[in-house]
Amino acid sequence: MENKIFRKLEIKDYESNYFALLRQLTSCNDDRIKFNDFSSFIHSLNNLHQIWVIEDIITNKIICTGTLFIEQKIIHDMGKVGHIEDIVVDSNNRNEGIGKEMILHLKKEAEKENCYKIILNCNEHNEGFYKRCGLNKKGIQMSLYL
Amino acid sequence: MENKIFRKLEIKDYESNYFALLRQLTSCNDDRIKFNDFSSFIHSLNNLHQIWVIEDIITNKIICTGTLFIEQKIIHDMGKVGHIEDIVVDSNNRNEGIGKEMILHLKKEAEKENCYKIILNCNEHNEGFYKRCGLNKKGIQMSLYL
Repeated sequence: MENKIFRKLEIKDYESNYFALLRQLTSCNDDRIKFNDFSSFIHSLNNLHQIWVIEDIITNKIICTGTLFIEQKIIHDMGKVGHIEDIVVDSNNRNEGIGKEMILHLKKEAEKENCYKIILNCNEHNEGFYKRCGLNKKGIQMSLYL
Repeated sequence: MENKIFRKLEIKDYESNYFALLRQLTSCNDDRIKFNDFSSFIHSLNNLHQIWVIEDIITNKIICTGTLFIEQKIIHDMGKVGHIEDIVVDSNNRNEGIGKEMILHLKKEAEKENCYKIILNCNEHNEGFYKRCGLNKKGIQMSLYL
């Protein structure tokens, strides 16, 4: 993690490689995302919805991102669950331990917010990676596109 | 669904069988949930966090509950995902189609909020039920208790 810093996503990242990084995960057409909508969204984020990036401070490129989205529940005595979402490591920086650093960082942030667990959904072939981060398989994800 | 109505969870439900219903899903010690915390939480709910119940208007019992928790994303052109959470049908009312009614209701609410998909996590043995509701398996859930 030399020359790399954790920071939250900022409004200035509208002009960065952030959308290109997200496209390594799934569809994200930045030409359809208006600056005003993006900046309002970043402005609305708080401790219950944290979007983090790892920036390479030599190249000023964002090389990893990850989101912690916290749900207040009634079960577990009004406990909180941290949903880990949208983890991407730049294809040029895989197998350097960057993704694990991000997961451990989001776990720490979830602990600060008193979450009783963190959960995430992934493809079967990523199970080994998340196991190495300390997570265990618990059930399946079902989805329906609307 | 005769003599049964959909409505949102209300502050008055602190005195109802709601916590007992949740205990059919998992731990929920209502003696540890303070009225003020519960009522503040219910008050904080909005279209992005909807807790629904089905009430039997003959017995005034809550026989089903389900939550729709909506996440604003940046991917998919700042799309929204509806997380379906904490589905419980009272053990006396299973196999009456009540659970499916709840899922279809939450799906409709997610559509109103322009979600591009709904997702949920479940045990493998519930896959058949959710398939009958129109959802399909997509990957696995990983979790870590903190």
